[in-house]
Amino acid sequence: MKHKKKFPRESFVSMTELVLPNDTNTLNNLMGGRLMHWMDIVSAIAGQKHSNSTVVTASVDNISFRQPIRLGNVVTLKARVTRAFNSSMEVRIDVDAEDIPAESKVSSNSAYFTFVAVDKNGQPVPIPEIEPETEEEKELYAGALRRRQLRLILSGRMNPAEAHELKSIFDIKE
Amino acid sequence: MKHKKKFPRESFVSMTELVLPNDTNTLNNLMGGRLMHWMDIVSAIAGQKHSNSTVVTASVDNISFRQPIRLGNVVTLKARVTRAFNSSMEVRIDVDAEDIPAESKVSSNSAYFTFVAVDKNGQPVPIPEIEPETEEEKELYAGALRRRQLRLILSGRMNPAEAHELKSIFDIKE
Amino acid sequence: MKHKKKFPRESFVSMTELVLPNDTNTLNNLMGGRLMHWMDIVSAIAGQKHSNSTVVTASVDNISFRQPIRLGNVVTLKARVTRAFNSSMEVRIDVDAEDIPAESKVSSNSAYFTFVAVDKNGQPVPIPEIEPETEEEKELYAGALRRRQLRLILSGRMNPAEAHELKSIFDIKE
Amino acid sequence: MKHKKKFPRESFVSMTELVLPNDTNTLNNLMGGRLMHWMDIVSAIAGQKHSNSTVVTASVDNISFRQPIRLGNVVTLKARVTRAFNSSMEVRIDVDAEDIPAESKVSSNSAYFTFVAVDKNGQPVPIPEIEPETEEEKELYAGALRRRQLRLILSGRMNPAEAHELKSIFDIKE
Amino acid sequence: MKHKKKFPRESFVSMTELVLPNDTNTLNNLMGGRLMHWMDIVSAIAGQKHSNSTVVTASVDNISFRQPIRLGNVVTLKARVTRAFNSSMEVRIDVDAEDIPAESKVSSNSAYFTFVAVDKNGQPVPIPEIEPETEEEKELYAGALRRRQLRLILSGRMNPAEAHELKSIFDIKE
Amino acid sequence: MKHKKKFPRESFVSMTELVLPNDTNTLNNLMGGRLMHWMDIVSAIAGQKHSNSTVVTASVDNISFRQPIRLGNVVTLKARVTRAFNSSMEVRIDVDAEDIPAESKVSSNSAYFTFVAVDKNGQPVPIPEIEPETEEEKELYAGALRRRQLRLILSGRMNPAEAHELKSIFDIKE
Repeated sequence: MKHKKKFPRESFVSMTELVLPNDTNTLNNLMGGRLMHWMDIVSAIAGQKHSNSTVVTASVDNISFRQPIRLGNVVTLKARVTRAFNSSMEVRIDVDAEDIPAESKVSSNSAYFTFVAVDKNGQPVPIPEIEPETEEEKELYAGALRRRQLRLILSGRMNPAEAHELKSIFDIKE
Repeated sequence: MKHKKKFPRESFVSMTELVLPNDTNTLNNLMGGRLMHWMDIVSAIAGQKHSNSTVVTASVDNISFRQPIRLGNVVTLKARVTRAFNSSMEVRIDVDAEDIPAESKVSSNSAYFTFVAVDKNGQPVPIPEIEPETEEEKELYAGALRRRQLRLILSGRMNPAEAHELKSIFDIKE
Repeated sequence: MKHKKKFPRESFVSMTELVLPNDTNTLNNLMGGRLMHWMDIVSAIAGQKHSNSTVVTASVDNISFRQPIRLGNVVTLKARVTRAFNSSMEVRIDVDAEDIPAESKVSSNSAYFTFVAVDKNGQPVPIPEIEPETEEEKELYAGALRRRQLRLILSGRMNPAEAHELKSIFDIKE
Repeated sequence: MKHKKKFPRESFVSMTELVLPNDTNTLNNLMGGRLMHWMDIVSAIAGQKHSNSTVVTASVDNISFRQPIRLGNVVTLKARVTRAFNSSMEVRIDVDAEDIPAESKVSSNSAYFTFVAVDKNGQPVPIPEIEPETEEEKELYAGALRRRQLRLILSGRMNPAEAHELKSIFDIKE
Repeated sequence: MKHKKKFPRESFVSMTELVLPNDTNTLNNLMGGRLMHWMDIVSAIAGQKHSNSTVVTASVDNISFRQPIRLGNVVTLKARVTRAFNSSMEVRIDVDAEDIPAESKVSSNSAYFTFVAVDKNGQPVPIPEIEPETEEEKELYAGALRRRQLRLILSGRMNPAEAHELKSIFDIKE
Repeated sequence: MKHKKKFPRESFVSMTELVLPNDTNTLNNLMGGRLMHWMDIVSAIAGQKHSNSTVVTASVDNISFRQPIRLGNVVTLKARVTRAFNSSMEVRIDVDAEDIPAESKVSSNSAYFTFVAVDKNGQPVPIPEIEPETEEEKELYAGALRRRQLRLILSGRMNPAEAHELKSIFDIKE
């Protein structure tokens, strides 16, 4: 694989799911675990498209579930790579849910998943860098560094004192 | 519902799953989304046991996937409530995976899910407090406050300057 | 419901599916029935978006399966309404399949499904007309009449002698 | 494989399915795509029985869905090969649906699927011819030629002018 | 419901299933639990056909699994009511498995399930008696009494001393 | 594999399942076949833990389904090996079902499954013996012999006259 750059839009994937009875709890709301299962599939495909490799889920960032999604709703998940590191990449997923007959649509939530590109033996392989184009993509690209430091701290692989970019979240003067 | 206290062990749940072909990717490893689906079910049951109510997933904290889990492995998920707030509660899930014929077992990962207890109309209901008993439970109980502040900041519902407990993660002097 | 016109793009839906082991036959190829199941879901959603009603599948036109789709492939299904009649509408679905790590993508096939928009008692309801915009949409709109006549003849609800538009398929002078 | 003849009854298969919640739409009716999935499985088994080979779905003819099939209904699918060509064969599927406690049974619909018999590398293999026995089987055998011409025309592989048998559908004098 | 008699053939059901990857263990053999799931569905349908009621599984007799059934095999399950009591009935299921391309077919096993016919509140309802016609049906009808006594003893609801018919299994002189 | 002894508790497994819509019949009760599917998985894992081998289901003893289990209930299945023979072992499964919001819990039923430990070619392998520790385990260990004789008689592999231990069930003097 050449180490060229790719644009976020090259990894864009849109997935649509219909909420069926077995996806819901006793209140007829979509279960959070089912939504995360879909998030994982759509973002893995985005990761595959960026890296042209098999990818494995490395981590999931904090997700909030705000609005209940109902039985019969149509759920749309849109994913794209925000930033690539050596062989790992961050994917942002945006979810919305629609009750089409009622003509109501809610922006449900967003999430960040990270993936590692691997070869057939499961060994990490280098991947292209990301070249953000739009303003929103540039912001996501910049923020990816902070989110990565938070992930490393939370999984015990980084000393908080070294997380210079992250500190801006907490408005901390160094 | 009376507002009595309950012990973490009263909400303990153990769930066992066999990794089947449809749960795996092309490397024959368990997909992260499938594991999160199971985590959501086991922790929702723990939340139900603590609150004796229907519960809905409110949020999921950062999860790292370290070890690949293989086709045919037996996955054990253990969940218990670590701390309760008004009508929400934090549940910790510990996952391990076993290749029984090979007699190898790995501690795969842990995660924190939060749930809100609701009535039949989906409105929040008050839940019992948690009374930690063991040393480990007391530590999880204390840490729950920091994790909650991080969740509130990350979902934009708390000003970082007010997250006094959280700052200890970053070794920040106030 | 007002009887306004809508554009084909307003009903556009894109759905992405990963081919999992249970979707495949013993040659590790996607089973045709599974693909039709996905086609039905994506086109029903397009029908819902056009009609803002619940829809039921009325018929499926001839489908050819040309290229085998493999385990692990990413299948993309794109659907949009081509023409609406009183309470029924024709939806065209285009399917492609990608082996992303191999960077190969095949246009697999297309299909036409028709749906009837219904109310809560399953009774047909009137739906908006279609206003085609692009050249391709205009062609699909024109062809829809011929395909409808063929459907009616094949289901025994039209006398072939009356199928004026259809005859052009067979280059038949009237 | 010897190129002997076989009777339609030698490939007869009967399949029974119970309509479960996840098979239904929000009106509690069986989704068309689910029914087609079952049709594909039962007719593939009939194709296997005729050819004693693995088979792959080549095409599906027009299907009309007339009667809604309800949650809890018992669906019976009966399939048999109507005619064999070199390595492809046409299978007719008849579907009925029963609400057993209500003692009501409806003949739901019929469909024609075609399959190609293949070896382990997916290459077509020759298959036995069909010897129709009953009057109904003889009619289906004769009609198979017309349906095949329509399929070839619709998939762009036959010039309509050459479809001599097909023209009888349209009562066209040549 | 009239208390008329019905023949075993009136409740006959044949079900065909294809063994898919998720139905198999790591040796690629059908899991016993999956087969029992299918047995329960086919025999419940037979019970529905005899009683024209909803039925619930009351018990399952000893089942032996002799021959492994393989991935890709076609499994045929045939069920029919052997004898009816007040509101319960015994159903016999015969299973065979075929590797069609290899032209090999094994008679896998048989089983007896009992069902209770119930109304919408789950209360037992009276059902027609069985009138056996063939020699085999008469033998199954006679044996049903012994099997019922064994069931009642094994579930602690009959005193073994009263199981006169059962004793013949053990060649015991009374 | 060394032929050492193991305790029943070493094979103990606890599995928790949530009853979802597709697991239920039209009365919203868990279908018996679904419960048996879960019983098979949990007891196969117990058998794997005892034998450190792949296991295949050899037989299932009589099971009675007493209490209906409802949609939304939490089902807990607990399995452990009661006795091992050369390469086969008996596993007892105890099932209870809980309606957690209603704070009601019923002991649903128990069952005995037997498994054979096999190598990669499906050939039986020797397994450790069982050393019962508690009073209850000793009773289950003793009873396993009687249950085994009944299984062998019912599957036609033992002459009832030789079933000395079994006769005690029927209070038969020899």
